[in-house]
Amino acid sequence: MHAITIPEPGGPEALVWDEVPDPEAGEGEVLVEVVASAVNRADILQRQGFYNPPPGASAYPGLECSGRIAALGPGVSGWSVGDEVCALLSGGGYAEKVVVPAGQLLPVPEGVELRQAAALPEVVCTVWSNVFMIAHLRPGETLLVHGGSSGIGTMAIQLAKAVGAKVAVTAGTKEKLDRCAELGADILVNYREQDFVEEIERATDGAGADVILDNMGAKYLDRNVKALAVNGRLAIIGMQGGIKGELNIAALLNKRAAISATSLRARPLGEKAAIVAAVREHVWPLLTGGHVRPVVDREVPMSDAAAAHRVVEESGHMGKVLLVV
Amino acid sequence: MHAITIPEPGGPEALVWDEVPDPEAGEGEVLVEVVASAVNRADILQRQGFYNPPPGASAYPGLECSGRIAALGPGVSGWSVGDEVCALLSGGGYAEKVVVPAGQLLPVPEGVELRQAAALPEVVCTVWSNVFMIAHLRPGETLLVHGGSSGIGTMAIQLAKAVGAKVAVTAGTKEKLDRCAELGADILVNYREQDFVEEIERATDGAGADVILDNMGAKYLDRNVKALAVNGRLAIIGMQGGIKGELNIAALLNKRAAISATSLRARPLGEKAAIVAAVREHVWPLLTGGHVRPVVDREVPMSDAAAAHRVVEESGHMGKVLLVV
Repeated sequence: MHAITIPEPGGPEALVWDEVPDPEAGEGEVLVEVVASAVNRADILQRQGFYNPPPGASAYPGLECSGRIAALGPGVSGWSVGDEVCALLSGGGYAEKVVVPAGQLLPVPEGVELRQAAALPEVVCTVWSNVFMIAHLRPGETLLVHGGSSGIGTMAIQLAKAVGAKVAVTAGTKEKLDRCAELGADILVNYREQDFVEEIERATDGAGADVILDNMGAKYLDRNVKALAVNGRLAIIGMQGGIKGELNIAALLNKRAAISATSLRARPLGEKAAIVAAVREHVWPLLTGGHVRPVVDREVPMSDAAAAHRVVEESGHMGKVLLVV
Repeated sequence: MHAITIPEPGGPEALVWDEVPDPEAGEGEVLVEVVASAVNRADILQRQGFYNPPPGASAYPGLECSGRIAALGPGVSGWSVGDEVCALLSGGGYAEKVVVPAGQLLPVPEGVELRQAAALPEVVCTVWSNVFMIAHLRPGETLLVHGGSSGIGTMAIQLAKAVGAKVAVTAGTKEKLDRCAELGADILVNYREQDFVEEIERATDGAGADVILDNMGAKYLDRNVKALAVNGRLAIIGMQGGIKGELNIAALLNKRAAISATSLRARPLGEKAAIVAAVREHVWPLLTGGHVRPVVDREVPMSDAAAAHRVVEESGHMGKVLLVV
């Protein structure tokens, strides 16, 4: 088969579409013939040499895919060859074939195209596990999503609105904020022109955000704590603004607030399977009912993954950039 | 009645046993004739002028007491005049009488003396709400308690052992560590001579602590994150080591760990009542059965509260220092 390999870490040109050996499904695994994958920030870090795949994972990038089951490994039940699926991967999605633990498979939701389903696993599992399973966002509460126009952001807006929460987003342009509003966002903050702490305070009558989904890490740590409500929960899933920041513990304590930080990729199989099962139970009905949909910016041929990486690195996109075989 | 007043903030001598007006029980409140109260760190901060009582609270210090119900306010059911009780207070325990919202009353557990019951409410509610309701310590997990010989520490050791957890403690002397061991602590760290991160790592075969109960704040923040296990939870309840510390978000994220910070006193009535109800359900049977007991260092006449404060400030005590009317 062909896969995107990284002979030497570097810029987008480091991604090379090359002939590689076919993978084989082991115990409890399934071989998927890939139709599409999607770009995640982690893929860019991996391409740059900053994010090695966890032990046992494929050496090729790609944390999600959609496609058809081509073979079942020993001990797999509930799935058949030919099933249309999407999957959460610990790597290897940038390829014509990939091996997936059965617990990380999801059926393609009714009403969603097979290719577009590649935009779902990573963002849905990340948002659901952080905003709902860890931070327990409840109806009537306010969620602040940084990077509202990203793949994660566009899904977080839709899921939070679907459960009856109020949603605030930050983004860097009016066009992106307009798209967030179309998806349901109630409070729009242009981070280039406005201070999100002030804007959240104003929009919530001083109460603050009950949950914040953050991809900036250190750069926003202090302001995120300021923007939290009493009993607020800050869920950090990225560190695009640095890894070490000053924490004002008194401010956190006075609000009886909490901070969690997670990544999905490094979780053991059992935890991933539990998240995928929760997503199938709670989010899949929303997708089938059309209340939530994948937001796809564009489709790029997988062999030209470099072009897709350039788009994501320039942050000119809205939602997910797909790589199509 | 008499109460300890603080005419001018300052050292222990700022505490003055004075004649003051009797309080009256309002709607949903109960008047308690106090038999004993106990010293908490917050009382010392209040005496020094650093911790004003929350709005609506008594101006006198004292966050817990035991005694007998002297009168019921309107709308109180389930309690009778003469009942022996202990209570979680938002202030006013250093007095001959105190008014308490009914939701913050607890019966004196069978087998515990009325005076000694004054040692229970604050530590039991703090430990239960943080270690169990927020950090969800589970059987077989490891709890690290900083200040194992304090009132909070001695209760945390006993409750964690009662649910089948492994307990590590830090303290500053061999005598204190020996007493912690008598209460059930499995891993003993002398913080003056040993590095708790190294000791926890060694004692858990590199796994780390699943839950840490911390009273030091900034000073221990970085090392607490280092000492956490994967999926670990750091519960901060004090800032004796400062309020602003550097947080290594990457370390937190790699462990998928969480930090919470709370105080009990500022919580609204409903949250306090929920904690008291949970404590009555889960902890009271352990006290009645003798599996857990209040640890009292000494009893001091309430009129000489200054002497009791000196003992606590010198950290020469083990468990709680009671103030007896």
